[in-house]
Amino acid sequence: MTPTERRERLRAVLAGNACITPASVWDPLSARVAESVGFEVGMLAGSVASATTLAAPDLIVLTLTEFADQIRRITRASDLSLMLDADHGYGNALNVRRTIEECEHAGAAGLSIEDTALPIPFGSGEGETLLSLEEGVGKMKAALSARRDKSFVIAGRTSAPRIEGTEGTVRRLKAYAEAGVDAVFAVGLESVEQLDAIRAATGRLPIIVGSAPASVPRDELAKRGARILIQGHPVLAAVAKALHETYAHLHSGGKPADLAPRIATNKEMDALLRADQYKAWRKEFLS
Amino acid sequence: MTPTERRERLRAVLAGNACITPASVWDPLSARVAESVGFEVGMLAGSVASATTLAAPDLIVLTLTEFADQIRRITRASDLSLMLDADHGYGNALNVRRTIEECEHAGAAGLSIEDTALPIPFGSGEGETLLSLEEGVGKMKAALSARRDKSFVIAGRTSAPRIEGTEGTVRRLKAYAEAGVDAVFAVGLESVEQLDAIRAATGRLPIIVGSAPASVPRDELAKRGARILIQGHPVLAAVAKALHETYAHLHSGGKPADLAPRIATNKEMDALLRADQYKAWRKEFLS
Amino acid sequence: MTPTERRERLRAVLAGNACITPASVWDPLSARVAESVGFEVGMLAGSVASATTLAAPDLIVLTLTEFADQIRRITRASDLSLMLDADHGYGNALNVRRTIEECEHAGAAGLSIEDTALPIPFGSGEGETLLSLEEGVGKMKAALSARRDKSFVIAGRTSAPRIEGTEGTVRRLKAYAEAGVDAVFAVGLESVEQLDAIRAATGRLPIIVGSAPASVPRDELAKRGARILIQGHPVLAAVAKALHETYAHLHSGGKPADLAPRIATNKEMDALLRADQYKAWRKEFLS
Amino acid sequence: MTPTERRERLRAVLAGNACITPASVWDPLSARVAESVGFEVGMLAGSVASATTLAAPDLIVLTLTEFADQIRRITRASDLSLMLDADHGYGNALNVRRTIEECEHAGAAGLSIEDTALPIPFGSGEGETLLSLEEGVGKMKAALSARRDKSFVIAGRTSAPRIEGTEGTVRRLKAYAEAGVDAVFAVGLESVEQLDAIRAATGRLPIIVGSAPASVPRDELAKRGARILIQGHPVLAAVAKALHETYAHLHSGGKPADLAPRIATNKEMDALLRADQYKAWRKEFLS
Repeated sequence: MTPTERRERLRAVLAGNACITPASVWDPLSARVAESVGFEVGMLAGSVASATTLAAPDLIVLTLTEFADQIRRITRASDLSLMLDADHGYGNALNVRRTIEECEHAGAAGLSIEDTALPIPFGSGEGETLLSLEEGVGKMKAALSARRDKSFVIAGRTSAPRIEGTEGTVRRLKAYAEAGVDAVFAVGLESVEQLDAIRAATGRLPIIVGSAPASVPRDELAKRGARILIQGHPVLAAVAKALHETYAHLHSGGKPADLAPRIATNKEMDALLRADQYKAWRKEFLS
Repeated sequence: MTPTERRERLRAVLAGNACITPASVWDPLSARVAESVGFEVGMLAGSVASATTLAAPDLIVLTLTEFADQIRRITRASDLSLMLDADHGYGNALNVRRTIEECEHAGAAGLSIEDTALPIPFGSGEGETLLSLEEGVGKMKAALSARRDKSFVIAGRTSAPRIEGTEGTVRRLKAYAEAGVDAVFAVGLESVEQLDAIRAATGRLPIIVGSAPASVPRDELAKRGARILIQGHPVLAAVAKALHETYAHLHSGGKPADLAPRIATNKEMDALLRADQYKAWRKEFLS
Repeated sequence: MTPTERRERLRAVLAGNACITPASVWDPLSARVAESVGFEVGMLAGSVASATTLAAPDLIVLTLTEFADQIRRITRASDLSLMLDADHGYGNALNVRRTIEECEHAGAAGLSIEDTALPIPFGSGEGETLLSLEEGVGKMKAALSARRDKSFVIAGRTSAPRIEGTEGTVRRLKAYAEAGVDAVFAVGLESVEQLDAIRAATGRLPIIVGSAPASVPRDELAKRGARILIQGHPVLAAVAKALHETYAHLHSGGKPADLAPRIATNKEMDALLRADQYKAWRKEFLS
Repeated sequence: MTPTERRERLRAVLAGNACITPASVWDPLSARVAESVGFEVGMLAGSVASATTLAAPDLIVLTLTEFADQIRRITRASDLSLMLDADHGYGNALNVRRTIEECEHAGAAGLSIEDTALPIPFGSGEGETLLSLEEGVGKMKAALSARRDKSFVIAGRTSAPRIEGTEGTVRRLKAYAEAGVDAVFAVGLESVEQLDAIRAATGRLPIIVGSAPASVPRDELAKRGARILIQGHPVLAAVAKALHETYAHLHSGGKPADLAPRIATNKEMDALLRADQYKAWRKEFLS
């Protein structure tokens, strides 16, 4: 699939009636497996990119170039429509422009830019702080101005619910909607009524929900305009556990053969790596 | 640990009496987990690098730069002494020189260069073919000449056992030993007598065994000079299975919460990502 | 300009009646200056990429990734239609596939793949050797199969004129034309009659000439089907001389002010770096 | 030369009595030429890195990874002791830590971290603003804590002279000296008395002067503690002019042969690319 086709598939999700959860992916292998079980949309979170590329916590020590390299690895190896959480756009509004250029070039389907003050400002302690509304709007406009493929999705993201409550959230997302973003993204919502307020203020833009109360059914979210729901990153934690169990087994002298029930077969690995495709190329071009 | 300290730790293994199996690692997270269960030596195989960086089979489509980037990610995130299977050195003897320079710079502890004709020559069909002995020796000499840190380990590797039998294997490894390699590496050995023959011919250089008959105990290998035994890459296959099960669960509508028994806890993830260290730095430098 | 638009501009040159010489460029600054004097087509030669990225001679020690990074830097900074001399495609036919993927992704307008045995085979001495015709055809087919944007130009290149004479050259380029390449590229031609022979055998494909006898006027080349003429890389040598003179002046205690006649003004530098564009963005997004 | 040897050579300059100006370099070729005329210390400025890597003005749109890649290209190709102007350390104090790690790993000899608020804060208009003293000190401490090779030079840089005058400059550099930096770096000094004030306040740390009044002789600067004087980047502007003249000549139909007086000879190019060294390697390892 071309980048544009992938972006249009993501846009179809945003324009639809359902609320989906993308596969949290971070490298070629996770993307291939996600695709193999049926996912069409993937998500690369900044936190997950930092964890897998640097083994560092979610503190914005990853560079834009490192992020883009990882995106490129994923889009090269799979056809997923890849949505990104691009944090604050790696600097000021000029850096946001580069973020769009690099992520679009790397083949992503879309991304969110958030209005949190990042990296953590000196002296700000534990809590998050938000940029001024004006600076947030400047970033959204910068992002939109840097886009080359109009199908590339740009979402305005805020953590305002847990800092400024509903009113601040609505005010911010309304401003980003007016700046022209394709979707609004709220982290920390606590009630479906907040969704309604956002929906009403943003001209019915599609909403991306960064975690929701577990008691709210997905249907309910969908009815109120949510099109994408992020549910954390348990897949990465599943891999961490599998790594731990396997290394521990081997380090304590366990036999590799005893791992058979817990590991993919050679045939499964070959399928993931498209061994047959390469075999056909060898036959066609190398013999 | 500095690169030199890591290399000296690997050299101590080669100079010792035991036969160890390194942890097969490929990214910061796998390296961190391997370290956390006690591994001191890691191995990045060309096949695993290709699978995880490109989702491609072991057909030498990975570039030296991509390989070196991955090494750098691993050595940046962990203190493992990282041994590499650097395939054929990414081209001719001049490329072998760059392979040494790039891998040494990236912080690896050592690597092997093999004498297989790679990438697959046109018209060679399914089987592997070997370079001439002279070309193999040229590569080993080129590798040794490019080393800057004398503690960096360079092993001469051959797949001759399954192509030329014991005689060819001994002839090749003897020549590489005379060229000055630090260790010899044989893939496809079928008997411990072959180890004895190699040992006798190579001035008792440490031997790396790329898979051995399951019936031979590790002690037996160690007695005959094997210091490192490669046992395939089940850890990667374990990750592939964990990915599959987790994505399948989520894609079919399973709840994230139900994954709890199969995933690492937040606390475990924080430990892997050294969250406490970053917290201390925030306190020290940002407040 | 989009990558496709740049490729179509290159195709228009190949489909035209004139014979042009692209600007030899290698980094963002050279590309910007070339564009500023009116060039629309640029050329990144493997030799020049190796010289500027590694300060190494033209011996194929540059990696495909390093080459692609440099392409990306150039296409990011300029709108040139960038033609590449991609040497032998960085390995066998499978590597040729990756070469196409990486170079196309990086935004190049087209490239040539040549049938020289590279990197230099062991024991081959000073002279160049050619792959078998069959292997050359396999590489061209692999290249064509890997292309995603059909506007991306793929040329089949040979150094056969100086190794196999006219007959071998014609035989090879005819086979590449039949495999489907968009243009044929011959290095070492000695007469315009050779051009006629190539033209006749290749179904009138556009011809790229890698140096021609100085006595042959460009018009004459154009009449016989040449659309692109490579004339070496004097621009890089001009830069080397300017570097030498300027550093020598400064190292011997010369005043920076005395360099004024030989250096671009601040205003010229600002124009090259598009300072006004950034100023406008600052005003629009940061204030 | 090893990285440590290069760093010790830079330290010897700082510990000496003379005031030198490093060669402004930005890629392998410029570094090789600078070395060939006798320079031992090179300087990669953030502005020059941005101009040559991105063709962008000095507005911090370059990423740390791009900066480090360029450093690596330079240190791989030359033995220069490379000093860096690493701007603000690419983010907050945590990013400063990564800046040290990446630049040290890439082989630089040292760098400066400055206390300017960068990238340009929203709403700050044309002028520069400075971080608080406390935040500046936090960055210096973070930098020092991240260093692995104690010979790596870390300088604290300020633009305070043109913003806060002598008093603010002295206050800041004194604090950075107390934090433990190896040198202090002031941009915008207007008199030698300012040097004396800085010298007195910083325990006689070596001073790096980012431009000085042209009327002050170098000896005078040296007597007052300046060890490095930055004199702008005329070399880059010389290259821009050479590029312009050469492309303009060729684009207007000028003959390549007519460029002979303005370009390096093949022999000179071969010397820069160390062709003889590669020839010797070919003979030794490939035949």
